[in-house]
Amino acid sequence: MQLLVHLSSIASFLFLFCLGISHFLPPVIKTWVPFVPLHASASWQAVAAEKRRRDMAKIPAEWRLPQKVIDEAGRRRSVADEFIDSLLDPDSRFLTGLEVPALMEMTTNGSLTAVRLTTAFCKRAAYAHQLNRNLLEIGFDNAIEQAKSLDIFWEVHRRPTGPLHGLPITMKDQFHVEGMGTTMGYVGWIGTFEGNKSSERKHRHESELVRKLRSLGAIVIAKTTLVQSLWFGETNNNILGYHWNPRNQQLSSGGSSGGEGAMQALRGSALGFGSDIGGSVSMPAAFNGVFSIKPSAGRLPTLDMPNSSPGQINIPTVTGLLGPSIASLRYAMEALLSTEPWLTDPGVLPIPWRKSLEVDTSEKKLSFAFMDFDGVVRPHPPIARALNMVKDALRATGHEVIPWDGPSHAQALAIHTAITSADGNYDVFEQLKLSGEPLIPQLIPDFPGLKPGPVKNAIEVEEAVLQLKKYRVNYQNYWLSTANCTMTGRPIDAVILPVVPSAAVIPGKLYHYDYIAAANVVDYTTLVIPVTRADQSIDIPDPNYVPVGEVDKKNWEAYDAGIYHGAPAAVQVLGGRLEEEKLLAIGQVVTEALNKHHISSGVRP
Amino acid sequence: MQLLVHLSSIASFLFLFCLGISHFLPPVIKTWVPFVPLHASASWQAVAAEKRRRDMAKIPAEWRLPQKVIDEAGRRRSVADEFIDSLLDPDSRFLTGLEVPALMEMTTNGSLTAVRLTTAFCKRAAYAHQLNRNLLEIGFDNAIEQAKSLDIFWEVHRRPTGPLHGLPITMKDQFHVEGMGTTMGYVGWIGTFEGNKSSERKHRHESELVRKLRSLGAIVIAKTTLVQSLWFGETNNNILGYHWNPRNQQLSSGGSSGGEGAMQALRGSALGFGSDIGGSVSMPAAFNGVFSIKPSAGRLPTLDMPNSSPGQINIPTVTGLLGPSIASLRYAMEALLSTEPWLTDPGVLPIPWRKSLEVDTSEKKLSFAFMDFDGVVRPHPPIARALNMVKDALRATGHEVIPWDGPSHAQALAIHTAITSADGNYDVFEQLKLSGEPLIPQLIPDFPGLKPGPVKNAIEVEEAVLQLKKYRVNYQNYWLSTANCTMTGRPIDAVILPVVPSAAVIPGKLYHYDYIAAANVVDYTTLVIPVTRADQSIDIPDPNYVPVGEVDKKNWEAYDAGIYHGAPAAVQVLGGRLEEEKLLAIGQVVTEALNKHHISSGVRP
Repeated sequence: MQLLVHLSSIASFLFLFCLGISHFLPPVIKTWVPFVPLHASASWQAVAAEKRRRDMAKIPAEWRLPQKVIDEAGRRRSVADEFIDSLLDPDSRFLTGLEVPALMEMTTNGSLTAVRLTTAFCKRAAYAHQLNRNLLEIGFDNAIEQAKSLDIFWEVHRRPTGPLHGLPITMKDQFHVEGMGTTMGYVGWIGTFEGNKSSERKHRHESELVRKLRSLGAIVIAKTTLVQSLWFGETNNNILGYHWNPRNQQLSSGGSSGGEGAMQALRGSALGFGSDIGGSVSMPAAFNGVFSIKPSAGRLPTLDMPNSSPGQINIPTVTGLLGPSIASLRYAMEALLSTEPWLTDPGVLPIPWRKSLEVDTSEKKLSFAFMDFDGVVRPHPPIARALNMVKDALRATGHEVIPWDGPSHAQALAIHTAITSADGNYDVFEQLKLSGEPLIPQLIPDFPGLKPGPVKNAIEVEEAVLQLKKYRVNYQNYWLSTANCTMTGRPIDAVILPVVPSAAVIPGKLYHYDYIAAANVVDYTTLVIPVTRADQSIDIPDPNYVPVGEVDKKNWEAYDAGIYHGAPAAVQVLGGRLEEEKLLAIGQVVTEALNKHHISSGVRP
Repeated sequence: MQLLVHLSSIASFLFLFCLGISHFLPPVIKTWVPFVPLHASASWQAVAAEKRRRDMAKIPAEWRLPQKVIDEAGRRRSVADEFIDSLLDPDSRFLTGLEVPALMEMTTNGSLTAVRLTTAFCKRAAYAHQLNRNLLEIGFDNAIEQAKSLDIFWEVHRRPTGPLHGLPITMKDQFHVEGMGTTMGYVGWIGTFEGNKSSERKHRHESELVRKLRSLGAIVIAKTTLVQSLWFGETNNNILGYHWNPRNQQLSSGGSSGGEGAMQALRGSALGFGSDIGGSVSMPAAFNGVFSIKPSAGRLPTLDMPNSSPGQINIPTVTGLLGPSIASLRYAMEALLSTEPWLTDPGVLPIPWRKSLEVDTSEKKLSFAFMDFDGVVRPHPPIARALNMVKDALRATGHEVIPWDGPSHAQALAIHTAITSADGNYDVFEQLKLSGEPLIPQLIPDFPGLKPGPVKNAIEVEEAVLQLKKYRVNYQNYWLSTANCTMTGRPIDAVILPVVPSAAVIPGKLYHYDYIAAANVVDYTTLVIPVTRADQSIDIPDPNYVPVGEVDKKNWEAYDAGIYHGAPAAVQVLGGRLEEEKLLAIGQVVTEALNKHHISSGVRP
């Protein structure tokens, strides 16, 4: 995230690139043109090309899309929704359109086999990859074998292996999965264990979250593309290249879990898993128009997964979920916590799923604070409209809406940057050296001289941590002080605010992370809820708007109603620390209010 | 803690000092002789002397002990138990001999006034300070005023203010309490707010833990002495000087919460509070023969209390309780958690008191692992005997005892040192500069050149944190693996081990912190349970013992049955992370088993 803040210098580069290369070409082709290796060597390109070829070869012939479909996809704005649906057989379309609870009801009661379900999602994931180039590992064969075993288990025992029996899932290519490699976006990690070619753990080691998911009956069918090094808000790496948004192929899929966001939008798996230290789950969810939850640190396992700056725990990386509905996220969270993950991962807190926190809104009206504008960068019209839509929907269902005027998010981002860049991000360059691949262009402005940044000493780090602690207290105190402003006399239940000030983003034009990074700084829970789509006919910017500052001006000028048309517009719902159960229940309230509102106003969600 | 490991060079100095100066002098007098100020200046001595005089003047004339009693105290080995009891009037003796639950039953049902109770404890604390020089702030007047208010509240409302209605408590002089100063052992903090003379918060600001205690009805009557800077295992500072163990005045009271340990042994308050990053609550509890709990990080508030290296949170400082029984600790922990402290302190986890974790041993037998010897430093005979006593007691009551052979505690201490000394402990010298006072002699060997240590850079700190994370996983995995060794097939319930390898310690002879520091490294809960007293007639060292290494040799040679006679011998009971409720229930089991054993074997507890 600290590398996400000085983008101006590459903005025009990428923007021209984006427009210069026709977006009617299949997205993946677009991405290879501009890379100029810093360390001339044929090898990294060959390794990456071979991996692409090998992965593609894992797609069975019967699931290969004809060239004319690929061509047609390249000409379309969106390859999601109706387009990918239209390519599928009815059974696969039906199954992959269902949410996790419905699917699990069927697999656990024996009315749906794991093989049928897994095959449907693998097929759809294969299509998704061909349309959107989002997979860094494909494991369909193994997945279907695992599904067979689950079906045999059911036949023998007449019961499921667990609450996620036969659930086909995808994981960001940062989690280790047995039988698969892990790149974390580095060419040098291909065919290795975290860069080590001879490690015994290669393709054997498994991240704790994956072990837990497997124990519940879930099946990892593939792994999704991500940002080289994780330190950026648009997905790009030297293996699959720049990754485009399947719902608007002129825009970014977000990052760092961009492939997962896109895969959920394309419904190539029933549920996805990412990681987040500064919006890396929330941004891809928002950009691709899917639901997500970023829990507080300590709720879900992070053991045995690689990371950038893995020894930095002052602001911890958390694992998060992306999926088609709040109910899907809730179902999986509850299932994961039923495994008592704290017993095996010392980083997990012994807090089981607490039904008592799931607010009963049939009896209780909620209070929401809205942060429409942080005073620094005003959201583009689609996001402003989405916020108003949620506000109207909540008011219409009897909930209270008040303004939020809490501690500065700019200060939160400054603290975030100080802490997450304290080590100069030296490890990024260690990983690049393994293959000789270059840094992705997006990161170049943050590494002057193409070398690690300055390294803080322990005293400087501790000074930043003191700021962090103080900020957390101020944020919590402000939250508590809202009790003076609500009609109930209680503090607000959640804050609703933008994820970023745009509906996805034109490559190189992501200028402002303040709205989302604060959630990591205070370690609060946050949901992303898709609200609507950008609409060029109504999302017209105020021509008289006077930007409040330089970044606001750049962001405002980056809005192009035509390019953004159709882009998902989402909101962030920020809840208290470690209140995942409550926040998901609130998310359900918001979603239902929105559905009613969409129906009554005739708006397409 | 990192400063606690290289003591050899001052050992002989302090040992000779201890023997050379008669221990028949009142303890506080002993402590001033050896200090040679590094920065010659009259001022710090004058400031410290004035504070001592002022504090002593806060003791009412009617509570002043006659000089002959002070002289008699100086000639005794112990000033606790029978000696201090004999000085008190019957009502004060009766009340101050009761545990927290019994006292709170009486104050909350109105049968005991807060004024009567507070007066009794203030009087005893006044005696305790005159015998043992352990108070850095005396607030008897205010305390009795507060007690009057509580009594009026009870008269008006016919109910208590909270579950700690009128409970007289003491706090380590690291917590801020309204109306009192805070020194943290620094002369330069006297009459300031953390060294700032003009701060508005001086004598006004209150630590969050204190606010919570106050809201429950507790009354802070005084604050207790501690280690200058907190970084040592024997209490000494330039205000009150070296602090002696009231149960054996030839030994240290431990540190860094030494005054609190001694005050609990002297029963000068009903309950005490300390802080712990590497045994700073557990060591004083063990040395003085009282009970303590060091919770895991995030269970109790730490907000708004000063600390050394306050920006270091990789191994966090926690607040802990010291008191006369497990039931007292349990009562106060439950009361504190009833305030939902996570609402106001972002460092506290939203985990309420969980009755479900309190094991019911009428139905369930427990499994204990024993670490009698860590392979590096063998405990002295009194500690070895205490461990065997607990083992026998547990076996006799039907519980299982197996050996513990987990990850090296020496490695834990190395990680601890690397992390807690990463900033060179530069802040210690900032505080010394305020007054020109010298570093206490105990810390001199750890600061060559009398200046801060080397400062690590962020990369080096992160490397240490990676070791920390790995160690935590290994420790947890080993714990889980004990399921293969227990008869129940479940992992053990707790580990029982020494606190340090001696029963309290002869000044300068504390060589080994490995037994206790691991609890902080893995962030587990730990209890201290007093078991017996060193007895020169039976705690006779094996003359044929061959030490396993240099530190073992030094520690073994430091044992002197005559000097140690009467010193409290305690054990540590180590429980799982954030399992305070379970651990306290286990502590009750251990205590009851010991009581039965003591009765059946006729041993004095």
